[in-house]
Amino acid sequence: MNKILERIIIDNKELTKKGKVADYIPALSKANPEDLGVCIIDMNNNIYTAGDYDKKFTIQSISKTVALMLAIMDNGEEKVFSKVGMEPTGDAFNSIYKLETGDISKPLNPMINAGAIAVSSLIKGGSSEERFERLLSLFRKISSNDNLKVNEEVYLSEKRTGNKNRAMGYLLKDMGVLEGDVEETLDVYFRQCSIEVDCIDIANIGLFLANSGTILKTGENIVSEHVAKIVKTFMVTCGMYNSSGEFAIRVGIPAKSGVGGGIMGAVPRRMGIGVYGPALDERGNSVAGYGVLRDLSRELNLSIF
Amino acid sequence: MNKILERIIIDNKELTKKGKVADYIPALSKANPEDLGVCIIDMNNNIYTAGDYDKKFTIQSISKTVALMLAIMDNGEEKVFSKVGMEPTGDAFNSIYKLETGDISKPLNPMINAGAIAVSSLIKGGSSEERFERLLSLFRKISSNDNLKVNEEVYLSEKRTGNKNRAMGYLLKDMGVLEGDVEETLDVYFRQCSIEVDCIDIANIGLFLANSGTILKTGENIVSEHVAKIVKTFMVTCGMYNSSGEFAIRVGIPAKSGVGGGIMGAVPRRMGIGVYGPALDERGNSVAGYGVLRDLSRELNLSIF
Amino acid sequence: MNKILERIIIDNKELTKKGKVADYIPALSKANPEDLGVCIIDMNNNIYTAGDYDKKFTIQSISKTVALMLAIMDNGEEKVFSKVGMEPTGDAFNSIYKLETGDISKPLNPMINAGAIAVSSLIKGGSSEERFERLLSLFRKISSNDNLKVNEEVYLSEKRTGNKNRAMGYLLKDMGVLEGDVEETLDVYFRQCSIEVDCIDIANIGLFLANSGTILKTGENIVSEHVAKIVKTFMVTCGMYNSSGEFAIRVGIPAKSGVGGGIMGAVPRRMGIGVYGPALDERGNSVAGYGVLRDLSRELNLSIF
Amino acid sequence: MNKILERIIIDNKELTKKGKVADYIPALSKANPEDLGVCIIDMNNNIYTAGDYDKKFTIQSISKTVALMLAIMDNGEEKVFSKVGMEPTGDAFNSIYKLETGDISKPLNPMINAGAIAVSSLIKGGSSEERFERLLSLFRKISSNDNLKVNEEVYLSEKRTGNKNRAMGYLLKDMGVLEGDVEETLDVYFRQCSIEVDCIDIANIGLFLANSGTILKTGENIVSEHVAKIVKTFMVTCGMYNSSGEFAIRVGIPAKSGVGGGIMGAVPRRMGIGVYGPALDERGNSVAGYGVLRDLSRELNLSIF
Repeated sequence: MNKILERIIIDNKELTKKGKVADYIPALSKANPEDLGVCIIDMNNNIYTAGDYDKKFTIQSISKTVALMLAIMDNGEEKVFSKVGMEPTGDAFNSIYKLETGDISKPLNPMINAGAIAVSSLIKGGSSEERFERLLSLFRKISSNDNLKVNEEVYLSEKRTGNKNRAMGYLLKDMGVLEGDVEETLDVYFRQCSIEVDCIDIANIGLFLANSGTILKTGENIVSEHVAKIVKTFMVTCGMYNSSGEFAIRVGIPAKSGVGGGIMGAVPRRMGIGVYGPALDERGNSVAGYGVLRDLSRELNLSIF
Repeated sequence: MNKILERIIIDNKELTKKGKVADYIPALSKANPEDLGVCIIDMNNNIYTAGDYDKKFTIQSISKTVALMLAIMDNGEEKVFSKVGMEPTGDAFNSIYKLETGDISKPLNPMINAGAIAVSSLIKGGSSEERFERLLSLFRKISSNDNLKVNEEVYLSEKRTGNKNRAMGYLLKDMGVLEGDVEETLDVYFRQCSIEVDCIDIANIGLFLANSGTILKTGENIVSEHVAKIVKTFMVTCGMYNSSGEFAIRVGIPAKSGVGGGIMGAVPRRMGIGVYGPALDERGNSVAGYGVLRDLSRELNLSIF
Repeated sequence: MNKILERIIIDNKELTKKGKVADYIPALSKANPEDLGVCIIDMNNNIYTAGDYDKKFTIQSISKTVALMLAIMDNGEEKVFSKVGMEPTGDAFNSIYKLETGDISKPLNPMINAGAIAVSSLIKGGSSEERFERLLSLFRKISSNDNLKVNEEVYLSEKRTGNKNRAMGYLLKDMGVLEGDVEETLDVYFRQCSIEVDCIDIANIGLFLANSGTILKTGENIVSEHVAKIVKTFMVTCGMYNSSGEFAIRVGIPAKSGVGGGIMGAVPRRMGIGVYGPALDERGNSVAGYGVLRDLSRELNLSIF
Repeated sequence: MNKILERIIIDNKELTKKGKVADYIPALSKANPEDLGVCIIDMNNNIYTAGDYDKKFTIQSISKTVALMLAIMDNGEEKVFSKVGMEPTGDAFNSIYKLETGDISKPLNPMINAGAIAVSSLIKGGSSEERFERLLSLFRKISSNDNLKVNEEVYLSEKRTGNKNRAMGYLLKDMGVLEGDVEETLDVYFRQCSIEVDCIDIANIGLFLANSGTILKTGENIVSEHVAKIVKTFMVTCGMYNSSGEFAIRVGIPAKSGVGGGIMGAVPRRMGIGVYGPALDERGNSVAGYGVLRDLSRELNLSIF
C-alpha cells in the first residue's frame, strides 16, 4: 500500500503546478505550492503514508464537519436543521446572495460559509473561548491527537480580514438564524478554521466517520451511526465546494476540502484518508489532492456509487 | 418481503393526503391522489409488490436518467459534459435564471429541466421521431417491457403548454448549448416525459442501474459500469429536485422522481425499486413515495452512506 | 446653430473609435463605425443638421417608445401597465432573470426587451402583418415621412437569430403576460426594430414628443399630453439601457437609444434631436452619439433637471 | 395656496388608512398613522402649510441627498462615483444581493442603503462624531434651522438593530468600496437617518435644491448648480425606492422619501415641498404623502417632463 501511495504522489506531483496557494491572508500564502502528501488509515488501524504527509496546515473548511457534529450533539438534529438547510448549491462557498433571494430563509447547507457560521453559533458554551474549547476537545479526541491547537497567526489574520464572513454573520443575525452575538460566533468560526493539522490527523477524523462515529482505537462511541451518516452525506453532496457534483462522479468518496490545502476522505467501513496539497484550483480545492483521491478511488475501487 | 412492503404502504397511506396531484396539464390532474404502490426487484430477479404497483403513470423526469445514458452512448462523456454540468443546485427543477446569471454558461446538471433539454438535443437521429424511437427502444430494453409507449394525451398537452421549457430551449440555443432545432429537441423531450410506466417498469430500470448497466435477466451489457455509476451519482446529488440533499440524508438511496408521481430507486448491487404515489409535495416529489423509500431504507438498511 | 452642430460633430468624431458596431447579425456589422451625424428640429420647425445625418440605419430599440404609445392608444394605460411595470432596472436590456426572480410577475419596464415584447403583443390587429402595418402608419405620421419601411435583410436576420428574445416571449407566455401567439408577437417586434430611418426621421419623432403628442407641422394631435409625458419619463429613467442613470445626470435629456446606432432626444417644449453613430459602448449606446448629446446639453442648456 | 393645500390634505387623508407605520424599531412605530401634513416654500420665500406640517419625524433616507452633496464637496465627483454608481435599480432599497451578483463591483446608486453607506464613508472628519457634526452643520444651514438635532432614541435603536445595514457595510469593506472603519461609518449613517425634522425643514432643503444649490434667504451659494442637478436627478431616477419609475410618471417631481414618513420635493426654479405622513406603502413610501404630491403636481402643473 505504501508503494501505491508513493506512486500516486509521484503521478500527481505535476498537477501541483496547475494550482495557486490561497493568498487572501499572508500566512496561507507562505505554503509551498509543490507540497503533496497523503495518509490512509484502515479499519485495522494500519497507517500508510507518502510524500509530505507530516507537513502542518490549517484545517479551514474541513472543520465544518466536526462543528456540525458538535452542534447536533448539543442541540439535536431538529434544532440544527431549523437553522440550516440540507440542500447542495451550485454557488461558490462564500456566496451570500442566496440568503436574500432564496426561497428558504436560512443557509442552504452547513458546508458553505453562511451555513457553517450558523452551525458554529449553535455550539454551546458560556463564552466564545469556552465554546471553542469544547470544539477543540472533540477535534483532539477524534483525531487521536491531544496536541492539536490553533495557528495563532492564521486565526488573527482571518479575524482581521474576514469581512465577507462578518457580512454573512450580520445578515444571518438580521434573518433571525444566528441567535447570539455575531462577533463571538465569528470568533469561534475563525478559530476552528485555524486549527493546525497534518495528513494523519485528518485521516484519523475520516476514519472516525468511516467507522460510523466510534473511535476505532479505543472503541469509544462519540456520535450515533446516524449522525456520522449525516456528515458523510453532506461530504458527498457539498463537501468539495462547487465541484462536489463532479467529484462525486469522478471520485465517489465522501470528502471535505479546505483552502488550507487539505482534503479529508471517509470511505464507509473501509478507511480514513488525509491529503495535503496547498495549490488550489479556482473553486478552492487542492488540485493535486483531487488527483490523488481520484487515482486512489480507481485503484482501490473506493467509490460508494 | 411482500409483507414488509404491504405494511409500509399502509403506514404511508396517510401521507398521500399531504400532497397535491400535479395540475399544470389536465391529463395529470386526473390521477387519484390516494394511490400508492411499490415494487422491488432483487438481484435474483425476485419481484415483490404492494399497493397500486400496477397503476400506469407517465415517467416524467425519471426519463432524464435514461436520456443521459443514451446521450453518453451517442456522444461520449466529454462531449455531453461540455454541454451540461455536474453540479447540484438549490434551485427548483424548472428554474431558468442561473442560465443567465451563473458563472458557467451551461445548465448546472442533467437532472434539472434545462440540462435535460440539452441532453435530449444530443440524442442522435435523423428526425425527432427517429431520435425518440431510439430512446424508446432503450427504455423498452432496460425495463424489460416491449410494450412501453407514449401517453399521447399527456404528450400533446405538454407540447401545447410547455412554454417555460420552450423558453429554456431557446435560451440554450442562444447560448450555443443546444445545437439542432429547438422545437425538434423539445418534441423528443416532451415525448420522453410522456412514456407510460408502472412500478414494475421503473423497478426494472432501477435494477439495471443497480446491476451496473447490465440487464440482469439476459446478461446483456448496455452501458459500462462507469456510465451506470455516473447516473446513480446524479440520482443522489440531484435526483429528488431541490429536496435531493435532504433525501440523501434521510433515505440515502440513489433515486429519481417525476411529477407523474413515480420514484425510481437503484440500490447498488442489491435491488431496483419503483414507487408510485401521485400526490406531490411542493418541490414536486411524491409525498408518500418519499415516505415509502425512507421506511424501506431504514428497514432494509439501504443507505449507501 | 448649424455651426454649433458641425463643431460638436468634429469634437466627438474621435469617440467613434472607442466603440464597436453591433455584430450579432451580419447586416448591422456592415455599418461604418466612423459615421456620426446629428439633426435638430426646433419648435419653429427649423431643421439643423451636420455630419452623416442622412445615413440610413435601423431604428431598433428606439421603436419601443412608439410601440408603447400605440399600445396605450389601443388598450388604455391601465391595461398596458398591468402587463409591464414602470420601474427602471440596473440590468442589461436583454436580461431575462428578473422575470423569474423579481417580486413582480411582469417585465420591469417597457424599454427593456422583455417589456417591449409584452408591449408589442398588445398592439391590436387581425394578424402580425396588420398589427405591424398599424404601427408603421404611426411611425410614418409622427416622423413626417411616408416612405419609412422595414430593412428586410435586418428583419429576416433578427427573426432567424433572435433566440434570446424568443426565450423571453415564451417565458412571458408562460407567466400569462403575453396573451396571443408568441411567434406572431415576435414578428411584430422584429419588424418594428428593423424600420429604417435617418437622423431627420428620429428628430421628427422626438419633436412630436417634445410638442406633447401633437404633430407640429400639421397641428394634428395624436396622443394626449399625458401619454407623451409617460413616454418621455421612460426615456429619462430607462431610455439609455443601463447607462440611463448616468445619462440623466451627465446629459439630462429624455432620450432613447438603439443598437443600430441611433439616439432620439426630446427636449420638452424646445426641440427634437436625432443622432447617429453606429460605434457602440459596451452597454449598447452610441459612444459618440452620447458625446454629441452631452455637448449639446451643455452648450444649449437642455437638461430638464 | 393655503386653501389648495388644505383641500389636498383632506382629499388624501383617507389614504393614510391604506398604509402601515414603520415598525422595525419601536420608536418609529409610535407615530400616528393618520398624521398628514404639507409645506410649500416658493421662490419668494412664501411659506404655505396645511395639516400636521409641524409634527416632528426622523428624516431617514431623505438624508441621503444631503450626505451625497457633502461627499461630493469633500471628495469631488470623480472619487465619489468611483465608489458608487449612477444607475437606478428595480430592487428594494435594502437589497444586498446585487453587491455580489452585479456586473459592477460597487453599489448601483447613492439612494439605496448600500450606496448611502458608501457615501457616508466618504464624509471627511477625524472621528465619526466629527464627520457627523460636519454633516449636521450642512443640514442646519440648508434647512435654515439651527436647532436640527438627532432623535437619540431612534439613533440608538437603529444602531442596535441595524444588522442588515451592518452586513452591507462589511460586504462593502470586503469589496474595497468602503475605506475606513465599518462601525464608524455606520455610526454616521445611523445618526444622519435619525435627524429630527418637520415639513418646513425639508421644504427648505427642497427649496435649496430647487434654487440650484444657493440658500434663497441669504443668497449663500453652497454647491454648484451642477451638483444640485446631480442630486435632483437621483431624486427622479431613484428617490422613491422601487416606486421611483412610477412616481416619475404619475407625479414627475424630483423627490426623496424616508421610512419616517417624510417626502422632500424640489421643483426646479419653482419651489421646495415637504410632506409628512407616516403610514407607508409596502415599498416604504408615505401612502398619503404620495397622493398629496400627485395632486399638487396636477393642480400646479409641476411635472418636469
